[in-house]
Amino acid sequence: MSGTNSERELIAEGPAIILVEPQLGENIGMVARAMANFGLAELRLVNPRDGWPSEKARSAASKADHVIDQTRVFETLEEAIQDLNFVYATTARERYGFKPVRSPVVAATTLREKFRAGEKTGILFGRERWGLTNEEVALADEIVTFPVNPAFASLNIAQAVLLMSYEWMKTGLDDVAATPFQPVEQRPSTKEQVFGLFEHLEEALDARGYFHPPAKKPKMVDNLRAVISRRGFSEQEISVFRGVISSLDRFPRRWSKKTGSAGEAPENDDD
Amino acid sequence: MSGTNSERELIAEGPAIILVEPQLGENIGMVARAMANFGLAELRLVNPRDGWPSEKARSAASKADHVIDQTRVFETLEEAIQDLNFVYATTARERYGFKPVRSPVVAATTLREKFRAGEKTGILFGRERWGLTNEEVALADEIVTFPVNPAFASLNIAQAVLLMSYEWMKTGLDDVAATPFQPVEQRPSTKEQVFGLFEHLEEALDARGYFHPPAKKPKMVDNLRAVISRRGFSEQEISVFRGVISSLDRFPRRWSKKTGSAGEAPENDDD
Repeated sequence: MSGTNSERELIAEGPAIILVEPQLGENIGMVARAMANFGLAELRLVNPRDGWPSEKARSAASKADHVIDQTRVFETLEEAIQDLNFVYATTARERYGFKPVRSPVVAATTLREKFRAGEKTGILFGRERWGLTNEEVALADEIVTFPVNPAFASLNIAQAVLLMSYEWMKTGLDDVAATPFQPVEQRPSTKEQVFGLFEHLEEALDARGYFHPPAKKPKMVDNLRAVISRRGFSEQEISVFRGVISSLDRFPRRWSKKTGSAGEAPENDDD
Repeated sequence: MSGTNSERELIAEGPAIILVEPQLGENIGMVARAMANFGLAELRLVNPRDGWPSEKARSAASKADHVIDQTRVFETLEEAIQDLNFVYATTARERYGFKPVRSPVVAATTLREKFRAGEKTGILFGRERWGLTNEEVALADEIVTFPVNPAFASLNIAQAVLLMSYEWMKTGLDDVAATPFQPVEQRPSTKEQVFGLFEHLEEALDARGYFHPPAKKPKMVDNLRAVISRRGFSEQEISVFRGVISSLDRFPRRWSKKTGSAGEAPENDDD
């Protein structure tokens, strides 16, 4: 479950992620990985405590080298965002002020709209221990905050970046129900195939006296057919079931470990 | 940004998170933290490599002790899910088979519906390095997979749990645009307040000869009023602006560092 795959499309666009005075290289690396997972690529650092470049960051980025290699460092937040048109500040704490507060879904939708309109955008994330100052939040256009458990609201920085990156990725999908891969395609069964299963099963059971007493047979058949019908089996599934019935119907049990009594156990049978 | 807050509601309900043969205690701890962030509380471990309990897990859980303390360990996956009604398997790899594949949004919606109907549900997560086996996936009802960057699809286990927990939390919200806190409430301004701002500003500018030549004044006033009107300022914001205009209008500049020429610099001024 790791590493880049050069044969597959590498998505690398969207808002810049700006980390203000990040402390640990590992966190910067995990941020880069989270960004890469969801198609973001532009990482900016304001005054990282342990300097830059950082081998710890590169290692924690799990091969998100395209993010690490392009990371830019700034001395002040003002410099880090001067070329951007619209900036969100992330915060878990209520801030006293008039600035609009958005959920991640709304913020990601706004970022996607601005991206499509050609605007440059960014999302600010604060220090690991205490986030952004009020002065830093004031430089942003709007606030984004996460719908967390009220009694356990602390998200680490890489998790916060992951969630915003994930919501960003989702706004680029035509359908949030879409998945990158699908189950094997199955053809819906025709009624003829369903009736074939009914008859096959009922004949095999009838031959064993399953429908007893005979007066109850119509009701028993009804119930059996109801169980099978409501599952909406595909053509392939009906084929599987008919194979199962044939096997049970035609062949004797060859041997049984438990009782040794049912059928014959051939001498050279492999376990 | 860390720790529980005993005065706030602790949400602890919803699907069980089942980790199959997790290797690192740190990852188990980060999973517990991610669960706690989004209101999940029931963690089950199948055969954790380094045993249980784990001090590394507790430390990485950042005080999600209510999750760590209740974590249960099982020897097999079958035992770990035997009491559940419906189970998702998470996987990043395409699996050959007929099992339905869902996006996180769809899976979380299904889990919420089943939770509300009183069913017990769970979500399986595989080993850090290679996920779930096909046999393990086969024990689940459906598959859930994430909409990731095709060339950078590797999510770590805590991130995968975080995303599913986050989507779970969102399905419990009445409105995905809702935020846990809001900006200071502002009263929309009345037209009388807007006209007051117009007049105040225009009078102060007129007194300085801003509207020059006089023939252009109507057009200049129109433009100025258009700039102000389209912002939809609140009552409070209009009050701020009128204070600014009054200050600029009434008081001389006391001193200027750059030129030393504008207004008077009092001798005892503090910088």
